This record gives sequence, structure tokens and C-alpha cells, in this order.
Amino acid sequence: MAGRGGTGGEFGLIARHFTWPAPSADLGIGDDAALLRVAPGMQLAVSTDLLVEGTHFLRGTDPARLGHKSLAVNLSDMAAMGATPRWATLALALPAVDDDWLGAFADGFRALAGLHRTELVGGDTTRGPLSICVTIFGEVPAGQALRREGAREGDEVWVSGTLGDAAIGLALLTGAPAPALGPEAARHCIERLESPQPRVALGIALRGVASAALDVSDGFVADLGHILDRSGVGARIERERLPLSAALAPFAQAPEVQAARSGGGDDYELCFTAPATAADAVRRAACTAGVTVTQVGRVVAGRGLTLVDGAGRTVVPDRGGYDHFG
Amino acid sequence: MAGRGGTGGEFGLIARHFTWPAPSADLGIGDDAALLRVAPGMQLAVSTDLLVEGTHFLRGTDPARLGHKSLAVNLSDMAAMGATPRWATLALALPAVDDDWLGAFADGFRALAGLHRTELVGGDTTRGPLSICVTIFGEVPAGQALRREGAREGDEVWVSGTLGDAAIGLALLTGAPAPALGPEAARHCIERLESPQPRVALGIALRGVASAALDVSDGFVADLGHILDRSGVGARIERERLPLSAALAPFAQAPEVQAARSGGGDDYELCFTAPATAADAVRRAACTAGVTVTQVGRVVAGRGLTLVDGAGRTVVPDRGGYDHFG
Repeated sequence: MAGRGGTGGEFGLIARHFTWPAPSADLGIGDDAALLRVAPGMQLAVSTDLLVEGTHFLRGTDPARLGHKSLAVNLSDMAAMGATPRWATLALALPAVDDDWLGAFADGFRALAGLHRTELVGGDTTRGPLSICVTIFGEVPAGQALRREGAREGDEVWVSGTLGDAAIGLALLTGAPAPALGPEAARHCIERLESPQPRVALGIALRGVASAALDVSDGFVADLGHILDRSGVGARIERERLPLSAALAPFAQAPEVQAARSGGGDDYELCFTAPATAADAVRRAACTAGVTVTQVGRVVAGRGLTLVDGAGRTVVPDRGGYDHFG
Repeated sequence: MAGRGGTGGEFGLIARHFTWPAPSADLGIGDDAALLRVAPGMQLAVSTDLLVEGTHFLRGTDPARLGHKSLAVNLSDMAAMGATPRWATLALALPAVDDDWLGAFADGFRALAGLHRTELVGGDTTRGPLSICVTIFGEVPAGQALRREGAREGDEVWVSGTLGDAAIGLALLTGAPAPALGPEAARHCIERLESPQPRVALGIALRGVASAALDVSDGFVADLGHILDRSGVGARIERERLPLSAALAPFAQAPEVQAARSGGGDDYELCFTAPATAADAVRRAACTAGVTVTQVGRVVAGRGLTLVDGAGRTVVPDRGGYDHFG
């Protein structure tokens, strides 16, 4: 980890917890910068996310899950671009050195990094209110990235996995109104919140298939809105098609679940559009990636998102996506 | 700025202050990731730094200077690698939205970015205790990066610019013991602290000349120690040669200045080694870059750094470099 260092505790701490082999980097942690080589014909995809205690995660969150999540939200950005994740840097502000906490955090981070063959090549640690900044680097064949502006009238709108679980998980943890789930369903929702599974394989499989894509971090309606804005189109979405997990399906009519389904954040599923003629290719991509996908509506001319209920009536989404400064 | 966004205030805020043209990026701010193309034959140099209020800068620091500094410390890492800076991402946690503050911060960041032709290609803004994470990307011809492990016995040790100004500036701002500088000298030291000038041109000019390099962020003795450790050598440094500014030179014997000279952080000068036969090439590189350089000692066999005074007596450095967790 480069730069601000010092000779004592901090470097020891980094060496102990965060210096793993990075065989695909020309130079990893320990100099002023890492040195990487991007393969010929590839574009480098870069994204950064800052997670702050109290804003993005609750005080007392299990450190292993936090290590997982801080990388997962960045891997999800790679998935949304159809990029293959390669490397990451980690900058960490900690109120105090807690060896056990750091070990668990590093374990969670490293396990997910290993699963996605993502190498930690640099970073920074410092004293401060708990916050985590991960920057991630992926490769995508030039011209094949899944961007937001490619949706066209007539395209179908798809979403991976299920929606709303993470929002209900957060409600359960904070004591906000939530349906009376059983313990197993509650555990499922909290795990979706704390240990999201980025859809990296699906993003890669959708290269050349999807016309636009992003990940659902702020809520389905808000996030799809970004695709529509950038593409200059509208969409008609059938609320009853928005996929629910087995944990939430029995409570589909509960107002909290309806709200979470269309507006709950933190699910880190992929929302994407594809020409209707590509529906079979979409299903094959999902099968390859081992993820379910659901067609939830259609891109239409004009602007804006229309959400309709089972009777075809327009409904107002309960929650328009989370905005830290809204 | 990708990912965590939302539809309302945050995106407006980003658009207002941080969306500048990034003509050399294939895709800049506004999608899930930026898309960059690294030139053939180049390695990508990557570094990340997290600055936290109260740890790295004082509460109430002028926002334009903070914008400058948050990029400068990263540009300094590029300089230390001999890399040409190309792109950066910025993640910002703010306790509240303050349009004037953000405008000034963005102006300071942008002015320095423009000077070094560094494009902002992505980022994240969120609510939280004030902290700033910049990740920077540069290019360096493959194999020509200035690394830490190349110092060899007999090499000369060099440093750019002057040392200790920033540490005295910090002492002046915090009311710590400091010599009785006049107002102009005091302003100089505070400006060195708050608006460091990264030695990017010097780093590039030292490709193929320096045998090892890093930037002085934690203090000369501590930072040179990293080169020595990585290179498996020692050094003999003449304290009286460590360069002082015109502001500090009259107070060279003051204990605070002696301490700052060898141990003060935040100067962001380059410390580097080069074979004695390359001394002329070093001076030409410095001339090209418009920066002074001073030869301050020599690499020796063995381990550790020996600091000697004007009479050749070994002195103990007053301060071994700042360690946030030391």
C-alpha cells in the first residue's frame, strides 16, 4: 500500500492482513503505485465506491460481511459493464486498530476476491471514522461494454435474481415496519443485505446480447430510470412481474414488500434491456451464469417509467430510490 | 460518478461540480464504470490515498486548497513512479451539502488536474464525516517505472526542492512550537502544507536515470528508509545538506527546524538514488523539470540510515516519520 505509511504499526498491520500474492500485477502492494498491464484490445473499466458507517452499513456490522460487501458493490459495477474484474485497491479509515476486526474484514474481502480472481494491488490505511473506499479495475473487449445509453423502443426489460430482499433485511435490522417473516426468511433477507452476490458471470455473458445494463443499488425504479434517461426512451414495467424471493413471495401484498420490490436498494442485481429477438440469448446467458432472469416490461417511446399493477392500472412507486443527499 | 447515486440531489450536485470533459477517456462519469484505453507498451500505474479530516487536514481547511491537495498527494505518487498521470477517480464523503464549499473544492481539484492533464473519470459522493479518496492512474513505458528496490551501494541520494516547510506550516497552524518566522515565511510554510506541488515533471525526467525513488510524505528519514529496506542497503546522510527553504534557512539551528528537516512529513518532494556517474543526468533532469535537486548523501553497504551532522558525528533523527497507527 503506497504513500502515506510510516515505519511502524501501520505497515505491520498491512503486511499482516492485506498483502496477498497478486501474480497478475507487474508490481503489487509496497511501492508508490501498483503497475498493471492491460491486455491488448481490452478497455480498462474503472469504478470507485465509498462506504461509510452509518450511511451504507450499520454500526456493529460483522466485519467479514463488511469486507465481502465493500468488494461486492464494486464487483457489481464490473458486472453491470460486462467487464471481467482483475484488480482492486482498498483504502480504509479505522477509528482504532483492532486486529481481530481487521483479520475478519480481510478474510471476507479476500474470499470474495478469490472467487472472482480479483487481486488486491494497492491501498491506504489511516485513522478516522470507519469508512472503506474500494476502486476496482476490470477488462472488457473494446466496444463490448454494457453501457446505459443503448436501450431502444421495443427492447425488453430484464432483471436478474430477486428484488426487495435487502431492503426488507435492513428494515428487520433497524426495527422499521416489515412483514412477519419466519426466522429462515429473515436470515435470507439480512444475508442479501450484508453479503450481496455480484452478478459478474451474468454481465460477461450478456456482452453482445444486452443493449443497456446497470446494477440495482438504489432501487429498481430509480436505477432503470438512469438507463431510460441516458437512452432517451421510456418503459412500461409490470409490478407483479418484479421477481420476489421465496422468502418474500408469501408477503407480496404487504405494503413494505411492494415498496421494496420496486424501490428497495442494495440488491445488486442486474437490470438490463435487450431486443425482443434476443430473449433466447438472454436466457442462455442466465443459464451459463447460473442466475435466474425475469422479463419485467418493455422499453417504449417517450420518456419516463410507467409502473402498472396486475390490472394494468398505473401505480405510483412507493419509493423512488435512495439518495444520500436527497 | 458510477453506482450509488439516486435520482435527486446527489446527481445534480455531481453534475454541477464534478462533470468535466474527459476527452481521452472512452467513457467518463455517468455509467457504472469509466472505460479507459492504456496505450500499447505502457504499464498502468495505480495509487490510492484516503484523506480524513482531523487526521490529514485540519477542520476548516480552505476547500480550494483541500481540492488541490487531495489530488496533489496522488499526483506525487505518480511522480515517485516516473509515471505520466492520465486519469483519476474521486470519492467524497461530506457531512452536508454546501454548494460554496463544493464549488471551491472542485475548483482547486480541477485547476491542478488541468495543470497535469489529468482527467476525472469517475467517483462517488455520499454523506459522512469529511473524507476524500482519490485513486489515480498513470502510464509509464513498460519497465521504466522508478521503483523502491533499485538503490545500490555507491549510489548518491538526492532530494528535490526543500524539506521541513510543511511540518513547520502545520506547527504554525496548530500552535505547536515553531521558530518566530516573519509573516511571509509563515505563509510560505503554510502554503507548502496546504498546496504541495507534486514533482511530476521531475519523476518523468528521471526515467532511466534514477535507480530508486519515492515521495517524501512521512518524513525524509522514514521514507528513505523504505528505499533502503526494499533495496537491502544502508545510507549515510549529511543532515546539513538536507535542503532548507529561504523561509527556514535563517532558523536552521532551531530544534523544530532540525526535526522538520529530517523528519517532517507532507513535503511531497522526491527522494531518489542514482549512480554517481549519473549526477550530470540528474541535474539535467532537474533543469528540464524546473526543480532544484540536492545530493544529500550516499548509499552504503549494510542496513540502516546514518544521519551525520556537520562535524561528521552521528545524530539521532528527532522524529522517525508519522505513522497514523504508530
